[in-house]
Amino acid sequence: MSEKFDAVDVIITKRDKGELSDEQIDWVIDAYTRGAVADEQMSSLGMAILLNGMNRREISRWTAAMIASGERMDFSSLSRPTADKHSTGGVGDKITLPLAPLVAACGVAVPQLSGRGLGHTGGTLDKLESIPGWKAAMSNEQMLAQLEDVGAVICAAGDGLAPADKKLYALRDVTGTVEAIPLIASSIMSKKIAEGTGALVLDVKVGSGAFMKNVDDARELARTMVDLGTDAGVKTVAMLTNMQVPLGLTAGNALEVRESVEVLAGGGPEDVVELTLALAREMLAAAGHTDVDPADALKDGRAMDVWKAMIRAQGGNPDADLPVAKETHEVLAPADGILTQLDALKVGVAAWRLGAGRARKEDPVQAGAGVEMHAKPGASVRAGEKLLTLHTDTPERFERALEALDGAWTIAPEGSRPDLLPLVIEKIS
Amino acid sequence: MSEKFDAVDVIITKRDKGELSDEQIDWVIDAYTRGAVADEQMSSLGMAILLNGMNRREISRWTAAMIASGERMDFSSLSRPTADKHSTGGVGDKITLPLAPLVAACGVAVPQLSGRGLGHTGGTLDKLESIPGWKAAMSNEQMLAQLEDVGAVICAAGDGLAPADKKLYALRDVTGTVEAIPLIASSIMSKKIAEGTGALVLDVKVGSGAFMKNVDDARELARTMVDLGTDAGVKTVAMLTNMQVPLGLTAGNALEVRESVEVLAGGGPEDVVELTLALAREMLAAAGHTDVDPADALKDGRAMDVWKAMIRAQGGNPDADLPVAKETHEVLAPADGILTQLDALKVGVAAWRLGAGRARKEDPVQAGAGVEMHAKPGASVRAGEKLLTLHTDTPERFERALEALDGAWTIAPEGSRPDLLPLVIEKIS
Repeated sequence: MSEKFDAVDVIITKRDKGELSDEQIDWVIDAYTRGAVADEQMSSLGMAILLNGMNRREISRWTAAMIASGERMDFSSLSRPTADKHSTGGVGDKITLPLAPLVAACGVAVPQLSGRGLGHTGGTLDKLESIPGWKAAMSNEQMLAQLEDVGAVICAAGDGLAPADKKLYALRDVTGTVEAIPLIASSIMSKKIAEGTGALVLDVKVGSGAFMKNVDDARELARTMVDLGTDAGVKTVAMLTNMQVPLGLTAGNALEVRESVEVLAGGGPEDVVELTLALAREMLAAAGHTDVDPADALKDGRAMDVWKAMIRAQGGNPDADLPVAKETHEVLAPADGILTQLDALKVGVAAWRLGAGRARKEDPVQAGAGVEMHAKPGASVRAGEKLLTLHTDTPERFERALEALDGAWTIAPEGSRPDLLPLVIEKIS
Repeated sequence: MSEKFDAVDVIITKRDKGELSDEQIDWVIDAYTRGAVADEQMSSLGMAILLNGMNRREISRWTAAMIASGERMDFSSLSRPTADKHSTGGVGDKITLPLAPLVAACGVAVPQLSGRGLGHTGGTLDKLESIPGWKAAMSNEQMLAQLEDVGAVICAAGDGLAPADKKLYALRDVTGTVEAIPLIASSIMSKKIAEGTGALVLDVKVGSGAFMKNVDDARELARTMVDLGTDAGVKTVAMLTNMQVPLGLTAGNALEVRESVEVLAGGGPEDVVELTLALAREMLAAAGHTDVDPADALKDGRAMDVWKAMIRAQGGNPDADLPVAKETHEVLAPADGILTQLDALKVGVAAWRLGAGRARKEDPVQAGAGVEMHAKPGASVRAGEKLLTLHTDTPERFERALEALDGAWTIAPEGSRPDLLPLVIEKIS
């Protein structure tokens, strides 16, 4: 019954712009996980943190306390080093699919614990589940064995990692306290550090389709996460990358798997290939493998071999036909000119409304639904040519998807150029 | 099931320093009272309000929404005007006891709904309950009849007034969101406006023994409450008064009743008499009675007559002996000199620890417990003379009470003068 601190004192410390002590942080995370600090107290503290901030020591301790609330995985028995990647989420962001097998093909094991999508950004597990037979759930032992045998695993995070984060995230979602950089950073990093990876590359997305709408906020989040990883002994780098425009030419589940397989076969859209290689180089470098060029492993089929082995090891058939949506609707270019803008958020919301995403955790997703793009900014288009193809099993969804696409693209006169951030904006290490 | 707003949107509006609309405020208070907005959402909003503030329109609407959550009393059928007083709470603040009968004796009815004490400040009902037989509970009909017959009522507020405030206050108490001026002001004023008084005088205490420690904060709270009362059609004035030093020479329950009766008999400590008369003049003026001098009603026994009638009407015997504590402990002056300081907070905590107050709502209080002061700042004292007498039924409490009194007073060389705010600091109308 006797608690070391009073929750009200901890809240008041942060409310009055003070620093929380290590002991206060350890206690409040532990007591919240145990139920000795109530939801209404934690949400009040969350709002005080959002508005008054935390310094590097506080964020680091907060993250450590969330890690300490659960189990930690350990890959030190593996015969090769480990590296993982985390993306803050975007539209058409299928990079994990080609990246994990590519890095494994170059000699570094990739233990990728992923999530499902909520809202307009897709989830890696939803995409892979469109492959017939593939299963996301694995025990720690199965994961370790597959990492040794195949070199790459993409699977669901178990409930044992950072349970405090799980409880806190659900609370933040309903109390207007999601958008706090210290809380976002510690939420992501507590899971990645508990996962036990030796190196970590963070892909921090910037733009309409991303959580961070501008470079300054993205840089602050990236800096905070790199500091947290470094403080915890994980070699961590972050890349700020463009999410003003969707990645690649597809946003959906099976649609994105198909595009990822094209990349693994040596083709695929230029931006997806470029970002996959850039992140692969960072992961390999962070794991100490600076003498290999991942472009070779894409060209010579080694990455594809790992992909197939990885899918098979989790029950999937990599050669099976992927699901296709029952209905399609084409959006045609209304004029000749240069496509100068294709808004990531609007395309993401359209794909979501077509059935590729879910509004609530418990909703199912459609494997075949999504948006296929026939042109990206910078391309010439002709009036009457296909600009987008919408895919869904439930055609009554087309209307709301088309509403979401209102103003999603701009066709400017010949000679115009898109005004966009580069694909890779900057690196923070 | 379908709600007009989403709680998260309302929280985010205030979190991002926006103004809440009238419709958002009406909805959030109503939905919180109904349980459609959860405690963890309201506490997050409370912290955002504490840190980002509300403007006059928002506070006024917030107060109106809390009033609308319950019943409103109506004294318009009475043959005389009504005026009430509210104190933000202090040590030795027994002013309501002589004030209510005094104002009633001058022709203005006083419907005083009071509370019990929590922490170091005493509660008016706790004090009156030390009178044998006296009962705090009354129906609205009994209250109206007593106001007509006797002119003054001091009783417990029913559950029907501003239930939203009751629920919100309990939440704020455990979530570090008590100290928000918009929320304090709307909490006090929602109850006073719902109570139906025609005029209201606010005694806003300033100093160590008060909730507001400095004049600027007290002035802001007073200004906010006066605006709220005025907006609601209640003639409202506020006085900022000194709470650096306890009021009068007693802090306790029966001890303060005894002192109040001395004032009603034409004697009593100078500061209690001065503040009682100052507040009485404001209440009478606010109710339109500017031609009467309450000092006359103290001198000629009319106020005492109303006091006795008021106590009798609620079952009490005004002539019965008051309870006396079983044990006393004297604190002697350690040196000759001038008493320049006697800290209100420390005396209040000592009285509380002696048994005059409660730590939890459900705790009982001791009628006889408290602190008796034999000198106030400005007085000459001699080494070995009594400075304080501590009263309790449970002598094991003396030790912790004496600890609370550590540093509570200063005896300075002859010729020194206390550096204190005036008793009445300023008036805000």
